[in-house]
Amino acid sequence: MALRSFAAERDWDQFHTPKNLATSISVEAAELLELFQWSRGQKGWDEVADPSIRAKIEEELADILLYLIRFADKAGIDLEAIAERKIASNAIKYPPEKFRGSDRKYDE
Amino acid sequence: MALRSFAAERDWDQFHTPKNLATSISVEAAELLELFQWSRGQKGWDEVADPSIRAKIEEELADILLYLIRFADKAGIDLEAIAERKIASNAIKYPPEKFRGSDRKYDE
Amino acid sequence: MALRSFAAERDWDQFHTPKNLATSISVEAAELLELFQWSRGQKGWDEVADPSIRAKIEEELADILLYLIRFADKAGIDLEAIAERKIASNAIKYPPEKFRGSDRKYDE
Amino acid sequence: MALRSFAAERDWDQFHTPKNLATSISVEAAELLELFQWSRGQKGWDEVADPSIRAKIEEELADILLYLIRFADKAGIDLEAIAERKIASNAIKYPPEKFRGSDRKYDE
Repeated sequence: MALRSFAAERDWDQFHTPKNLATSISVEAAELLELFQWSRGQKGWDEVADPSIRAKIEEELADILLYLIRFADKAGIDLEAIAERKIASNAIKYPPEKFRGSDRKYDE
Repeated sequence: MALRSFAAERDWDQFHTPKNLATSISVEAAELLELFQWSRGQKGWDEVADPSIRAKIEEELADILLYLIRFADKAGIDLEAIAERKIASNAIKYPPEKFRGSDRKYDE
Repeated sequence: MALRSFAAERDWDQFHTPKNLATSISVEAAELLELFQWSRGQKGWDEVADPSIRAKIEEELADILLYLIRFADKAGIDLEAIAERKIASNAIKYPPEKFRGSDRKYDE
Repeated sequence: MALRSFAAERDWDQFHTPKNLATSISVEAAELLELFQWSRGQKGWDEVADPSIRAKIEEELADILLYLIRFADKAGIDLEAIAERKIASNAIKYPPEKFRGSDRKYDE
């Protein structure tokens, strides 16, 4: 995998501990969030549409994803498998007929 | 895509604004980080090896990934393309012969 | 100080390293943010007014503040002094006649 | 209060909604955490001792504290009162004779 050899070639493996990588994911997620910190419309569509902010959004999304893949790789976790499992369990937990148009999920 | 129809069937699209989804990614990333908050070894390998914590780690990784995919989908961003672009630009920015065994990257 | 003896009486000092405490502040901050994750009004006034959510908001604010005080105490930093210094430097950085009604600060 | 007039003089009140301020607290907390992201010693004492990193730590601590005070002010919450209440409830929840030298608290 490209990321694995990228880190190996630079001997960065020693810094890529689970705790450090979890920290990195949080830090990058906050950098994405920062782009919406004072969004006027409160929903963030303006930021997504603005070319210069959009470029930053893409940077941060890529950073989060790469650290996520790196974490999973170091921990021996199959990202695709756990994502599919989660979708299946969410489908059971939130049946559409009960949760339509509601965000009750998040309050209970 | 599975996630898109999952949200559509529940009319959750109205809540899935970029700002809300960026918030969700940050919140889930912090839930992952929380699992390493007091790690004794400071590196987090114990947590990854412990079956009950590992199950929680997988849950949080899946949550982050699903919100990431959802955000990209709503914003019309191709996750795979931006990840590849980022790897390519990192390879130029951090040449292995200059950055081997160093984490100088992060200090400068 | 109450917090110092609280930790000392429980031998928690060994876990209260700067990195761990910085992690705790981030985790608690995300728990506060989570309460506004799906806020309908997008501004969060409803949550502040709702008695049961308000109680949780107060819990999270207290957690952040206590970890902040703990961090400063362990690192030998005078919170009041640095807060006053910051207010003074912000006043110079953002003169009211230039920044009135503008959030330009955050874009530049 | 100094912060209140600071924001009022700049008409920033309109941006200081609870959701935006909770976002700011999280963003600043992550900026503090970022300073420890790759800490070699894993505990962060080196960063606290390094003058240039220490200056940044102080900046971030001040930012978190000021947004915390601002949030409490806008929401009409008495920070000192909730901090004292929390210390009292923690003292009951974690009796020293049961929790000495243990971080069991965080696992259960």
